[in-house]
Amino acid sequence: MFAVTVTAQETKRIMLVIHGGAGTINRKNMTEDREREYRAALEQALRTGHAVLAKGGTSLDAVEATVRFMEDSPLFNAGKGAVFTHEGKNELDAAIMDGRNKMAGSVAGVTIIKNPISAARAVMEKSKHVMMTGRGAELFATKMGLEIVDPSYFWTERRWKALQEELLKEQKPQALLQTADENRFGTVGAVALDQSGNLAAATSTGGTTNKQYGRIGDSPIIGAGTYADNESCAISATGAGEFFIRWSVAYDIAALMKYRGLTVQQAADEVINKKLRAVPGAEGGVIALDAKGNFAMPFNSEGMYRGWIGADGQPHVAIYGD
Amino acid sequence: MFAVTVTAQETKRIMLVIHGGAGTINRKNMTEDREREYRAALEQALRTGHAVLAKGGTSLDAVEATVRFMEDSPLFNAGKGAVFTHEGKNELDAAIMDGRNKMAGSVAGVTIIKNPISAARAVMEKSKHVMMTGRGAELFATKMGLEIVDPSYFWTERRWKALQEELLKEQKPQALLQTADENRFGTVGAVALDQSGNLAAATSTGGTTNKQYGRIGDSPIIGAGTYADNESCAISATGAGEFFIRWSVAYDIAALMKYRGLTVQQAADEVINKKLRAVPGAEGGVIALDAKGNFAMPFNSEGMYRGWIGADGQPHVAIYGD
Repeated sequence: MFAVTVTAQETKRIMLVIHGGAGTINRKNMTEDREREYRAALEQALRTGHAVLAKGGTSLDAVEATVRFMEDSPLFNAGKGAVFTHEGKNELDAAIMDGRNKMAGSVAGVTIIKNPISAARAVMEKSKHVMMTGRGAELFATKMGLEIVDPSYFWTERRWKALQEELLKEQKPQALLQTADENRFGTVGAVALDQSGNLAAATSTGGTTNKQYGRIGDSPIIGAGTYADNESCAISATGAGEFFIRWSVAYDIAALMKYRGLTVQQAADEVINKKLRAVPGAEGGVIALDAKGNFAMPFNSEGMYRGWIGADGQPHVAIYGD
Repeated sequence: MFAVTVTAQETKRIMLVIHGGAGTINRKNMTEDREREYRAALEQALRTGHAVLAKGGTSLDAVEATVRFMEDSPLFNAGKGAVFTHEGKNELDAAIMDGRNKMAGSVAGVTIIKNPISAARAVMEKSKHVMMTGRGAELFATKMGLEIVDPSYFWTERRWKALQEELLKEQKPQALLQTADENRFGTVGAVALDQSGNLAAATSTGGTTNKQYGRIGDSPIIGAGTYADNESCAISATGAGEFFIRWSVAYDIAALMKYRGLTVQQAADEVINKKLRAVPGAEGGVIALDAKGNFAMPFNSEGMYRGWIGADGQPHVAIYGD
């Protein structure tokens, strides 16, 4: 009887936490309609992953399904809604990690894979590598039978206009630098805990508008933007990627839990609200989840699209700092 | 007088530690001539970096100069001596990090840059990015005036033969898998401490023979194959890169020093000889140096080309496990 009771409790511990990017998000630069759209999309993303977890699916399946949904939405800077590079292309990055065994996969700079997060999973499960880039990654994804699209699939008017604004700014170096850039740090991510007690993390992004030179940010870097290990936590980050790489943000949170005994909330706060807050420009946030279902969603920017859903199936979403 | 004495002691603390790759290196598969060549090249690399440090140069200049020397040597799997990809190309990765301010730069998958480590430094110092890949990174390096070469510059008979052997193995999946593959984990790296007490780390590689799909290993990943922070240590890794990424090896050593108070030797041993030794296939090693000049060079493979040089200018080199 005791064992049954424990199992029932364990089952309740499923948890999914998501983000849809951090940055200069505040009520001033948000219309009511736009806010409603984001809230609806975040709720739907949460329900998508919850459905997987509720029927006993793995955390890996849940974070992949959730991120695929967000990649397919034009609202978020990932997949369909990806921002444009300086050359007017969409170059996508994604990573996934399995907390059971620290298996990981990532792709960077891909332009024809409809769902980069599924390509990252294929790298993890069907190759001996962790990270693939560019044409090579596309060739691999094609061989693995993933859905390939024409690069024009990723064109959206909103992101195209954002690039034109950025290009205009470059011509007037002193002007407009204060323009609201809600999408500067756009990224999507999910962390989940399944009924078996396993953690997983997934992150996907189009990077930064007007990025150049094959730039890669933190999202596809294991230990920077994405990390999962049942012994500590699952992390997905969003923010000024260069700082998140230099500070090994995702792994640092895990290390603070393992080596200093901090809770997931304390560890995530320490990195986002102490270490990074002290560094000019190091804006962003993380979602962090431990193997008991405790989670944190700290950010040091004005806002972060975020949400969580537990065993009761009730989605919770938030956007601003309050 | 006391201040002068301290300064003199501080000056003595310059230190440079290097590696030239780890793997199945043992006396059985090494000729006397070949061993002499490696020892001479390692000593020359050490003297190159030492000359920079001895005249008051920065650790950053020292590790760059040292790695450039090793990139220009056909002996090591980096720059001129890089291994071939499955498609018969040479795709190079490199990273550099400055322990003073955690600034970092890296390039991955570049094919026409003579010295990838200098391109990594240009990314760090002349762009707002940390990591650039492929054609984009090459365009950036070209604009920065770095030396560009025809891809044929990287062709060497020894590495070409190694690829042919690997391709042959693929056709006979059951045969020859036990062949000595001394170059499987080839990488070069340097960590240095300068007279001002600043640490720096640099790593450069051609990756693995027969690599496919734009694979990137740990070398250009900050926190995996390369890391430097005056508060903890400077690290350059060499080994089965996928494991070094999944275990965030370089940053994990730093975290063990910061959060558990381990010495650089204890922390490096913990990761290489405990954590990774327990994982089948996770072979390799690191060089690790703290801001007081203490260093460690643990490896769990049969051998690692390695060496160190202190204030006295006397180079020390070693290859095997004893």
